[in-house]
Amino acid sequence: MFNKSLEFFHYVKPEDALERILTSSNIYPGIEVVDSLESLGRILAEDVISPFSIPREDVAHFDGYAVRSSDTISASTTNPVRLKVVGRVEAIVEHDLSIGDGETVYVVTGTKIPKNADAVIPLERVRMNGEYIEIIKPCKKGDNVTFKGSDILENEVILRRGHVIRPQDIRYLLEIRKFKVKVYAKPRVSLIAVGDELTENLDEIGRKKLETSTKLVASYVKEFGGMPKIIGVVPDNPERILETVKNSLDYSDISVTIGGISLGVRDLCWRTLSRCLESIPIARGLRIQPGRATSILVFSKKPVIMLPGHIQSTLCGTIYTLIPLIYYMSGLSPKKILPTIHAKMDETLIVKEYRSFKRIRFVKLDRDGDTFTANPILGDSSMLTPILKSDGFIEIPEGVERIERGSCVDVQILSWPQLLQIFLRDHVHQSNDITY
Amino acid sequence: MFNKSLEFFHYVKPEDALERILTSSNIYPGIEVVDSLESLGRILAEDVISPFSIPREDVAHFDGYAVRSSDTISASTTNPVRLKVVGRVEAIVEHDLSIGDGETVYVVTGTKIPKNADAVIPLERVRMNGEYIEIIKPCKKGDNVTFKGSDILENEVILRRGHVIRPQDIRYLLEIRKFKVKVYAKPRVSLIAVGDELTENLDEIGRKKLETSTKLVASYVKEFGGMPKIIGVVPDNPERILETVKNSLDYSDISVTIGGISLGVRDLCWRTLSRCLESIPIARGLRIQPGRATSILVFSKKPVIMLPGHIQSTLCGTIYTLIPLIYYMSGLSPKKILPTIHAKMDETLIVKEYRSFKRIRFVKLDRDGDTFTANPILGDSSMLTPILKSDGFIEIPEGVERIERGSCVDVQILSWPQLLQIFLRDHVHQSNDITY
Repeated sequence: MFNKSLEFFHYVKPEDALERILTSSNIYPGIEVVDSLESLGRILAEDVISPFSIPREDVAHFDGYAVRSSDTISASTTNPVRLKVVGRVEAIVEHDLSIGDGETVYVVTGTKIPKNADAVIPLERVRMNGEYIEIIKPCKKGDNVTFKGSDILENEVILRRGHVIRPQDIRYLLEIRKFKVKVYAKPRVSLIAVGDELTENLDEIGRKKLETSTKLVASYVKEFGGMPKIIGVVPDNPERILETVKNSLDYSDISVTIGGISLGVRDLCWRTLSRCLESIPIARGLRIQPGRATSILVFSKKPVIMLPGHIQSTLCGTIYTLIPLIYYMSGLSPKKILPTIHAKMDETLIVKEYRSFKRIRFVKLDRDGDTFTANPILGDSSMLTPILKSDGFIEIPEGVERIERGSCVDVQILSWPQLLQIFLRDHVHQSNDITY
Repeated sequence: MFNKSLEFFHYVKPEDALERILTSSNIYPGIEVVDSLESLGRILAEDVISPFSIPREDVAHFDGYAVRSSDTISASTTNPVRLKVVGRVEAIVEHDLSIGDGETVYVVTGTKIPKNADAVIPLERVRMNGEYIEIIKPCKKGDNVTFKGSDILENEVILRRGHVIRPQDIRYLLEIRKFKVKVYAKPRVSLIAVGDELTENLDEIGRKKLETSTKLVASYVKEFGGMPKIIGVVPDNPERILETVKNSLDYSDISVTIGGISLGVRDLCWRTLSRCLESIPIARGLRIQPGRATSILVFSKKPVIMLPGHIQSTLCGTIYTLIPLIYYMSGLSPKKILPTIHAKMDETLIVKEYRSFKRIRFVKLDRDGDTFTANPILGDSSMLTPILKSDGFIEIPEGVERIERGSCVDVQILSWPQLLQIFLRDHVHQSNDITY
């Protein structure tokens, strides 16, 4: 190799790069308070403690008659037990009713059962007879009663800091009347495309290429909890690159450039930014492939991630740098952790190049009875096909050269639409069926 | 059982109920055109055909020198091959360059390689020497060249009707300059909570219960591609119920009531709506448990789903009726299909009741090395705990009474936050670590 210089790549492990970013920058998880109703997908920044027991008292599970189970022991079809109806609670109201021997009170679902009652017999299981009900089957203590605190106890911690808020969690927050909740602030990520050949302007797409990479990265930033801001295209001009990155850091936590990061004359991102006094170089290249040109520095104490422009490289750089950083700023560990689907390799995959790197290969999943098989979709890093025709990716660890047919792999999934697509694609309705 | 009447339950299989809905109503998938940039998660209503090959011509994969590979055969460190630089293509522009014997042209990534060239040698692998470059290693035909159409061919169908649009698909749509795309219209789902005891008004929550179920159902409607509209609370009053459902159908495809569906005196939803001339009863109860009170009719040719009010019943009713209907209106089959995670039962689960029903049990997933184990979280259908502390649910088929410890189960997943939570929960950053 010739032309070796300070600009030349010396690849760093992504984990090491992340650690260096965190020791050299001053980013940290921010906290904000949001409406619980708007908190879906956010990450809790507090433990949530139940302020009262649920239910708050012993309540009826069905509309019916609250009884003492001991009164019903002898009940049978031929010899029904008769109980006197001494009260009716027709709505969820406070009441002070109690029952004595041979008595019952009508209650509706969710209301407190009267004192001395320990079971509820559903409405449809009793026969009315004037002021009395008749019961033909014994019931047991606790039948159709939900006892105080049996769901959730006062002071119980159900949701902890670091929890990803799901639909059911919002239901719980409302239930305990916690209408505001502390969550980690969404990391603000600025996205800048770099290149003379790029445009955002549809009138120019005869002469130039439409810039689309920032849109792809923005989708993933969102999917993993960040707040993307697409700044747009800057030309291959050192002043413009510097100015744009600098400005973007005023209103964002992380700045991302895409393109202009290799060794050509027009690859100015690293060259320009790494020479600034405000910058601390972190990694000139990462030990991932595709994506090895991904370069990182800390500029004015904030991370600047420089992604390569080839589509697969852009994506891999995003996965190994942006997702962990977004996690970190969301109160989680700065690790590349993704949901996975277990699968078996459908063919042997041989990957000899970049042995000391993590190699990423996109795979398609196919059903094989109960399990999935994974089939690599190959193509150079500029190609869309591997990410379009695949369902996720596998990681080939450092030093490994082959993954044998039949061996188990974890296929990593990058979005909910991706996951739905895997499960729904065999269930497209045929047009001629839509004639109900 | 006493009090049997026309109102009494006669449970129907959810699949049968869905078929009846489709034959009795006139809902059908609608189509709309949206900006490709806004199409994430939408379902394609057309096949997308590539209007040109990608790349459109043979292009350089890196910045470097386009060569005839045959010229480089003899290259070695001791005996470098010298090629004359006869042109430079510094940007992605149209050009008509060609090379002859012993010639080369500088090209940047993404530009067409000159006529007669069949390989590109990256910039950093050559040594400049005046007007010449020196090469120390032979290259092969195709090295660092992406040939025309090698990614995607003209007229190739990459995305088909019924495809769930993922981030990478949007990137492709923009790449082929398809800025608008036909997708299925989001089904509009009205959500109405029924019950005197409920309120949406925070001032009333001393006397009444805050209504929260519509919010939960709305989240899932959204997650699976519908457009929820929360109408609010109506009291247990037949006129109000009828009026609200009727009005809601003016601007929605499906109307959903929650609560007031059992057999008590205040359970007026079925009683009221099933008696109307405009209504066709579909199912008075479903063979699912929890959720068996779920009742369905078609009203003025549109489905009305009446969900029970107990939280787990509401959720199960949603899963087995609303999700399939939303799918159907999105061009997919009206089936309850959810993403699943494979797991092993950690204990034997015995479910004797409702043998002829599908029984739903919520389970928590734990890691056991490479696999997950599933642990049932039990509790009556009014309890939040099973859905709060679980990660998904399993289905116990009709007729099955036991699922043995160690047997494989598919755990069904209802949301992206749920999935992330499963994988991220062991990676919460400890406070004292956040001191980089």
